Amino acid sequence: MTAPLRIALAGLGTVGTGVIRLIEENGAMIEQRAGRPIVVSAVSARDRTRDRGIDLSAYPWFDTPAALTEQADVDCVVEMIGGADGTALELARKSLAAGKSFVTANKAMIAHHGMELAKTAEAGNLSLRYEAAVAGGIPVIKGLRDGASANRIERVYGILNGTSNYILTEMEKHGHAFDDVLKEAQAIGYAEADPGFDIDGVDAAHKLAILSALSFGKALDFEGVEIDGIRNIMAADIGQAKALGYRIRLLGMARIDDGKLFQRVNPYLVPESHPLAHIDGATNAVVAEGNFSGRLMFQGAGAGEGPTASAVVADLIDIARGDAGTVFATPASQMEPCERAESGNRVGKSYVRFIVADRPGVLAEITAAMRDADVSIESLIQTEKTSEGSVLLSMVTHDSRECNVLKSLAALSSSASLQAAPVVMHLLSDQD
Amino acid sequence: MTAPLRIALAGLGTVGTGVIRLIEENGAMIEQRAGRPIVVSAVSARDRTRDRGIDLSAYPWFDTPAALTEQADVDCVVEMIGGADGTALELARKSLAAGKSFVTANKAMIAHHGMELAKTAEAGNLSLRYEAAVAGGIPVIKGLRDGASANRIERVYGILNGTSNYILTEMEKHGHAFDDVLKEAQAIGYAEADPGFDIDGVDAAHKLAILSALSFGKALDFEGVEIDGIRNIMAADIGQAKALGYRIRLLGMARIDDGKLFQRVNPYLVPESHPLAHIDGATNAVVAEGNFSGRLMFQGAGAGEGPTASAVVADLIDIARGDAGTVFATPASQMEPCERAESGNRVGKSYVRFIVADRPGVLAEITAAMRDADVSIESLIQTEKTSEGSVLLSMVTHDSRECNVLKSLAALSSSASLQAAPVVMHLLSDQD
Repeated sequence: MTAPLRIALAGLGTVGTGVIRLIEENGAMIEQRAGRPIVVSAVSARDRTRDRGIDLSAYPWFDTPAALTEQADVDCVVEMIGGADGTALELARKSLAAGKSFVTANKAMIAHHGMELAKTAEAGNLSLRYEAAVAGGIPVIKGLRDGASANRIERVYGILNGTSNYILTEMEKHGHAFDDVLKEAQAIGYAEADPGFDIDGVDAAHKLAILSALSFGKALDFEGVEIDGIRNIMAADIGQAKALGYRIRLLGMARIDDGKLFQRVNPYLVPESHPLAHIDGATNAVVAEGNFSGRLMFQGAGAGEGPTASAVVADLIDIARGDAGTVFATPASQMEPCERAESGNRVGKSYVRFIVADRPGVLAEITAAMRDADVSIESLIQTEKTSEGSVLLSMVTHDSRECNVLKSLAALSSSASLQAAPVVMHLLSDQD
Repeated sequence: MTAPLRIALAGLGTVGTGVIRLIEENGAMIEQRAGRPIVVSAVSARDRTRDRGIDLSAYPWFDTPAALTEQADVDCVVEMIGGADGTALELARKSLAAGKSFVTANKAMIAHHGMELAKTAEAGNLSLRYEAAVAGGIPVIKGLRDGASANRIERVYGILNGTSNYILTEMEKHGHAFDDVLKEAQAIGYAEADPGFDIDGVDAAHKLAILSALSFGKALDFEGVEIDGIRNIMAADIGQAKALGYRIRLLGMARIDDGKLFQRVNPYLVPESHPLAHIDGATNAVVAEGNFSGRLMFQGAGAGEGPTASAVVADLIDIARGDAGTVFATPASQMEPCERAESGNRVGKSYVRFIVADRPGVLAEITAAMRDADVSIESLIQTEKTSEGSVLLSMVTHDSRECNVLKSLAALSSSASLQAAPVVMHLLSDQD
């Protein structure tokens, strides 16, 4: 089999140009490993005249992505446009309808439309691959789909957003406030001008929903992910967690609880003995716990031109080799929807932090509300005066039902003693 | 494709029974993921009467492994006998000659005969898979062969022997002597009665040679691995490394230096900022640095029934799916032998520890020998009296050629001041 795999690239931003650069630089090696060459037969992007730092003259240009799907000399379309719907989705549908395999780096589209696209691909015996959509250059999709394939996965979780992890670890290192670190991160290009997608957990939730479908064989359910981000975390929270032997990390966490699917993106207190506590900066890491493999962890760069291109081209090599196997490990037609677990029924320790007025009786008021909701306090970590004269009050609960913790906070919501909404984070445990 | 993949198991020790247990327990899920069932059609082991804790009555028994290769209803033979040669090798050759795919957990056999077997398998268009041979349950073979396939790998290295890592981290935690920790490890089954294979680096070298062939596409060269183990490491070395911000880990390290292959198993001083410094206990971890992916790390359990069975069955699922691709990523017929790099030409910092007599002039004698060999000393870390009245003297060199460090020690070898052979370890750096 020496006929080349002929690909069309849609979107020539950072990732698209990275893919071209990679294929040009590592082409001979790729041909050896794939058993045949991978050649770029067509490209398409919005602006033909933009200087992308690479010579595109050798590659036939098309003004619309849709035109790529009509080329007889294209075996596989690579989508690097982005966005859950619109052009990218239209391209995915048209490519598969035209009998072409499809590779994408688009986590939003897979999170929202992965089931539909997987069914179409499998019905047509075509490949649909998306290694670059989750955790950038880390081959975690292949790690789960192929590497851990013999296991029932007990839970899958990890650090899925590099921007948030960068901000948290910078706050940890320097003790700076969230807003200041966010501004620094924006200045050096580690955070977008509009950072909500990253710091509010949506990006991590897209990736989590994909990992979850792959791990549990249940229908992908992005809407079922409970999402919370890192905007309300203060440097004092990080310091107090540290005093307890924990680091704060934004985790995506998915597991099956009594046959129900639990999926959440939330800042967690991660014990220092856990490998995720040592993942710093923009690095991503995914943990999968299998019933035979035990705990596996995959870590590396979660974004960037090189890592993302590495993942895209690895998918192309798989396709060139004639790799079989389904999109999400389990055939899409067999992936049933799964009832959602009630997170409130989960039992564990929580970290709760209040900002309160500095006056007598406040602690009694708070502890009474917690007692009334059946939440007992393991330790009151510390109280600390803010520059505004308020007091920060942090505590860790004993194992409690999460709904009871929330009930205690609801009872306090109208209290004049609280000067801001309390912040709740869960402590990562082996049962979490 | 619903015809089952019919397998024969040779060897029913821990791993073999683990494979049966896994297939029985996760069978329905495996059938979904593989697209067809995996069934055990034949088994063979030395002792039919031994109680293995599982019911073998459903599986046709054969007294010799060779008989498995003659069964028409066997598609794939799984070898879990062990040993580089003898029965295991004969079985591999016969299986491939009989047109059966072959899966093995046998690192010694692949390290010694991998090239021959790969050529035979590829010539016959058969699968030869060995995920369980390296790093137990961690899917690092697939991680390199499929996940990082688009990259030129700059270097591959890691913690490849769980026993050694367990001993080193126990010494680190408790400050105990090597011999005491080894005895404890033997008592709880973490080290063999004859521990040489693990603690002298041979086991790690087998795995390193395999990773190296897979990463660089050069002929597998186990004989070319320089090997040193951990027997001579003292608790004081670990303490002094720690004071410098390093942890001592037995690493396998391979890279291509100016077109020459460098492979070494050696204790290294790993900086605390490096993810390998946080791998404790019997855990394994492999780092691959790709020219596009950047640094990838894979970690998990390096041994044990469950993890090893997980790796073996993942290989079987690949084969059941009809997975293509070559044994070592590069076709075996194209893997040329590679000239070996001279480790002495490598430049870096070294840690050197002497045990010397406590008398005037010793330090002058040592530092003069180092000066004469062009080795300059960055820091004299500490001198410490032993209970026998000797003095431990540890130092870190500036960047030096390794052969010069060895030359300085050779010049001192007949010195009456030295009471034991000096210990040299290298500091892991980004160039190492």
